[in-house]
Amino acid sequence: MELKKIITVRENWPKPGISFKDITPLLNDYDTLEKVVTVMTSQFVNSGVTKVLCPESRGFFFGTAVALRLKAGVVGARKPGKLPFVGSSVEYDLEYGKNVLQIAKDTIKKDDRVLIVDDLLATGGSAIALTKLVKEIGATLVGYSFVIELTSLKAREKLDKVEIHSLVKYEI
Amino acid sequence: MELKKIITVRENWPKPGISFKDITPLLNDYDTLEKVVTVMTSQFVNSGVTKVLCPESRGFFFGTAVALRLKAGVVGARKPGKLPFVGSSVEYDLEYGKNVLQIAKDTIKKDDRVLIVDDLLATGGSAIALTKLVKEIGATLVGYSFVIELTSLKAREKLDKVEIHSLVKYEI
Repeated sequence: MELKKIITVRENWPKPGISFKDITPLLNDYDTLEKVVTVMTSQFVNSGVTKVLCPESRGFFFGTAVALRLKAGVVGARKPGKLPFVGSSVEYDLEYGKNVLQIAKDTIKKDDRVLIVDDLLATGGSAIALTKLVKEIGATLVGYSFVIELTSLKAREKLDKVEIHSLVKYEI
Repeated sequence: MELKKIITVRENWPKPGISFKDITPLLNDYDTLEKVVTVMTSQFVNSGVTKVLCPESRGFFFGTAVALRLKAGVVGARKPGKLPFVGSSVEYDLEYGKNVLQIAKDTIKKDDRVLIVDDLLATGGSAIALTKLVKEIGATLVGYSFVIELTSLKAREKLDKVEIHSLVKYEI
């Protein structure tokens, strides 16, 4: 599967110097989407995953599909103001300012085995934040599954020492 | 499946007078999620759906899962500023002000058969807007599939005269 032929690179978006990896065509084509979800899941079918944790918003495209194949529930990590009953919050740094992700109360518990799913591993800000959130609860982090990894940013080195899977790697 | 026992009603959220239907526990439980996605899909397995169109953000939880079962692609309708290559935009009224939803260029074409998927049919603002967007492109709208319908708001009457499916109905 030559995903690089399907993902469209948009230069200077959302700002100058950024080379945005546009997954729109990947989502739009059933055969590609089916293969992507299958490969995202394949490393973790025997890992006893009970919860898939995915950040707002593009992570949601993959979270439920992966969760259903692993017979797990799905937990969305939301920006502040979106959840009526917040359980855990975690803050992380952006280039300018800070961001916060929250999960609802009782969605991840101590005995859960968690897989973090997202479309992109870039600087790793949200993945590192979600790792901290899972550990603070005392649940087990089983692994990470990303569609795209930007390798030169070396976010992989800052993640937990568990299985880190990505389907397609770009240097930047 | 007694979904009303699983969906949590949060009174006065996000503002006084609103009785928010919280789908967090539904997403969190694999057996429930599996059944919900199966029933959301069941009415449309023979409808020749080629694209599932779902609005940001909670619609994404269901869009990909439904699309994969129908062997269709998924198209996310995003708020402005999220897509690098906008194809169609549609505006709709909110209680105060306006909202805009956009889809990426070439994601829905004239020969597509579209199913609109979302967690909630309330006033119908976003569903009506997405209907208009599909028709402007000249694609065929096959139906709507919602988890929850608030019946007293009578949004159903304002939608297109195609199959409108919801799993659980509340008066308000």
